[in-house]
Amino acid sequence: MATATLYEKLAADIEALVQQGVLLPGEKIPSVRQAAQHHRLSITTVIRAYLLLESRGILESRPQSGYFVRARPGEPAIDLQPTRPAARPSAVDVSALVLSTLRSIRADDAVPLGSPYPDPKLYPWQRIIQYANAIGKRYDTWNVLDDLPPGSPELIRQITRRYLENGYTVDPNEVVVTIGATEAINLCLQAVARPGDTIAVESPTYYAMLHAIERLGMRAVEVATDPVEGIDVQALARLLDERPVAACMVMPNFQNPLGFQMSDARKQALVTLLTERDIPVIENDVYGELYYGDVHPTSLKSYDTAGIVLHCSSFSKTLTNAYRIGWALPGRYKEKVERLKFLNTLTTSTIPQLAIAEFLRRDGYDYHLRRVRKAYAQQANIMAAAVRRFFPAGTRVSRPAGGYVLWVELPEEVDAMALYHAALERRITVAPGHIFSPVPTYTNCIRLNYSGAWSEEMEAAVVTLGKLVATLQERETT
Amino acid sequence: MATATLYEKLAADIEALVQQGVLLPGEKIPSVRQAAQHHRLSITTVIRAYLLLESRGILESRPQSGYFVRARPGEPAIDLQPTRPAARPSAVDVSALVLSTLRSIRADDAVPLGSPYPDPKLYPWQRIIQYANAIGKRYDTWNVLDDLPPGSPELIRQITRRYLENGYTVDPNEVVVTIGATEAINLCLQAVARPGDTIAVESPTYYAMLHAIERLGMRAVEVATDPVEGIDVQALARLLDERPVAACMVMPNFQNPLGFQMSDARKQALVTLLTERDIPVIENDVYGELYYGDVHPTSLKSYDTAGIVLHCSSFSKTLTNAYRIGWALPGRYKEKVERLKFLNTLTTSTIPQLAIAEFLRRDGYDYHLRRVRKAYAQQANIMAAAVRRFFPAGTRVSRPAGGYVLWVELPEEVDAMALYHAALERRITVAPGHIFSPVPTYTNCIRLNYSGAWSEEMEAAVVTLGKLVATLQERETT
Repeated sequence: MATATLYEKLAADIEALVQQGVLLPGEKIPSVRQAAQHHRLSITTVIRAYLLLESRGILESRPQSGYFVRARPGEPAIDLQPTRPAARPSAVDVSALVLSTLRSIRADDAVPLGSPYPDPKLYPWQRIIQYANAIGKRYDTWNVLDDLPPGSPELIRQITRRYLENGYTVDPNEVVVTIGATEAINLCLQAVARPGDTIAVESPTYYAMLHAIERLGMRAVEVATDPVEGIDVQALARLLDERPVAACMVMPNFQNPLGFQMSDARKQALVTLLTERDIPVIENDVYGELYYGDVHPTSLKSYDTAGIVLHCSSFSKTLTNAYRIGWALPGRYKEKVERLKFLNTLTTSTIPQLAIAEFLRRDGYDYHLRRVRKAYAQQANIMAAAVRRFFPAGTRVSRPAGGYVLWVELPEEVDAMALYHAALERRITVAPGHIFSPVPTYTNCIRLNYSGAWSEEMEAAVVTLGKLVATLQERETT
Repeated sequence: MATATLYEKLAADIEALVQQGVLLPGEKIPSVRQAAQHHRLSITTVIRAYLLLESRGILESRPQSGYFVRARPGEPAIDLQPTRPAARPSAVDVSALVLSTLRSIRADDAVPLGSPYPDPKLYPWQRIIQYANAIGKRYDTWNVLDDLPPGSPELIRQITRRYLENGYTVDPNEVVVTIGATEAINLCLQAVARPGDTIAVESPTYYAMLHAIERLGMRAVEVATDPVEGIDVQALARLLDERPVAACMVMPNFQNPLGFQMSDARKQALVTLLTERDIPVIENDVYGELYYGDVHPTSLKSYDTAGIVLHCSSFSKTLTNAYRIGWALPGRYKEKVERLKFLNTLTTSTIPQLAIAEFLRRDGYDYHLRRVRKAYAQQANIMAAAVRRFFPAGTRVSRPAGGYVLWVELPEEVDAMALYHAALERRITVAPGHIFSPVPTYTNCIRLNYSGAWSEEMEAAVVTLGKLVATLQERETT
């Protein structure tokens, strides 16, 4: 924390000098070494401050020359382009690759840039386990019947209260507690579609969506998606004109892997379209609480009048991933989802539900989330700047509006699986783009996790990745 | 515990007098009241002793006359007959009824004779929660990746060791940890059959099997089942000659609801038949550890040479049902089941897995189970004797060889759902026979849970049930 303050302070000082006109556009600023000596700071602190300023569009780095004040300070250009997938449904068989990549990143000493999980260091685990212990001691096991679907009444009450705090009124009778968002998504999909049906997804899409489709023997069709605005509603409408689609699966807030937040207008347009066509939509909102802006984002659910939105979320990304507690608000499919929950796993473990309910009840959730959001917003900038700096020209990065993953498009000729394997040998993990589409599409993309506090080790990992990308690029072009 | 010793001692004393010829066959023994005064025991203790002796075939009760030494001491006649279900596949839609009956029995103050769960008082919950707490405190959440399917390596090691202690060598690489046996059964069934397929089940069958079939849109066909010997292998063979069957689901040890233990010969015959026909069989062995005999029963798995047995079990019936930890040994379908686990619920919660592993590692499991088995064996006798005594003539009961449920066949004209509702009004729960078959078959049967220590409250509940049955019978016959 002390270091974070130091680099933020240095960045703020330099930014003030630029705004006051002391440092002029195009002017070279002191080298990292000079600045470190001058301010009596470590090299890392200075680099971090410079990267932060670069991400804010205040500075730019020029190879072999150092850092300069940007000619026109402002946001860096968004250079990822909207995707244009083939609008052809296909069977899904991505889980073997996902499982093998997840397994490979479990090595303790690898830099976990490929992990789908948040760094647990920010999470209030000791408090949660303390509640769990107290609850366990007084737990009367006959009450396991209390946890029949829809789930623990106390947890449901707290989930409902949380929505209210975020400005949404939710009917507690609509909540179904599940084994993480994974089960919620599975049950919702099973409630609205049958084996063989076609499901529309974003492109790229989070592989958990693809898993649900694969599990039930359905087919996926990808829809063009803008890296800042989300799924292309017009493109979806055209697709619906062309072929039967049983359901739609999207992640409107901080989509994994692109990180976008759909605008309210686009969310509303999507819900309107699907309501007109009477097509249910499964909304994965697991990152909804991890926004970088000032206010909690809306959800598709908040625009739903017909009960066609099946909203899924979990505590795995915000409190702990050790417990696997998620939930669904399945709209008009509530009874079906509740029954499927009963058939699929009977009940959800009691103590984790009650421990999380206790955490929510005691009102520390907002404080905790504010810290997490602030950390992720800073780390997003640092990671993006580091990739821009250390990766070869032609690399494009996303600009996440929330969550903790960055989508990186490498030069076209670089194969992300080759990078994945080469990085793994150097004990660095990345998530290859191959797992974010039912057909080989994002083969030159990777997803990087920036939930861990920035460190020299992480910077070194990004430098190494950049070199590996350059080597792979060279190999392909010669 | 003190009371248990008293009534057992009294029973042993009387049994010795019969064996020594002091009390002769046909002779009346002292009334309950006399015996209580004489031995300075409570009425309940004496009744318990007499019921125990009745269940052992030493005494018999004659209405309005009291207790007599049986003319020919021995086991009471097995009066349940083998079932003869219609061999016609049917869709399954039993879960709504199961869920509503389970919900109705969650009332705190009802006598939980209809519960599917063991009374938790016998279970070492405080020790388990203590381990969970210690593990939670040192838990590094990044390791959630360690719990990717197949599950926690330490728990898998302990499960494997447990099989070894019971005389079976199991390959640790075959174990897949699941959310209770429910998920294990679901995944196994999904691995071997497709929607629309026909699955052969025992008749009656445990509704969890029917749930799995319902969840996947398959069809169930019932097979004749002997209340002592289990599924009729010849009848199954004839069925297989007649129509395609994708898989078979059975509970060879202490079947719920009949309580039988299939003989080794019949287990072997079943595996041989299914191996010849190359039909996979899902074996639900959740009660395997709750045997009343001297040795751990064999399983279908122990006769399997072709990998066609998908063996499922859990700790929910032996250690705690708060944690929902089960597992599968899916034979040659292991990879498929492991992948489906990943798709269905991603991982199983870490801490419950480690807490149970720690309990197993510390070696108190056998001691714990010996206590439980002894209690259940006694309570089985007491419950069966109480039903024989207080229910109208024509009532038939099972003779459980393990587990903790009794199957009661009421006089034919009694509707178990009517009994269920009438009992519920008196705050007594029973499981109606309707939920143990895909078609209305066992409508005059109920299942009673005897896992709770025998008490005056339980005896009063059985007396009340008996009166309700008599009333319902009268209403139907007049």
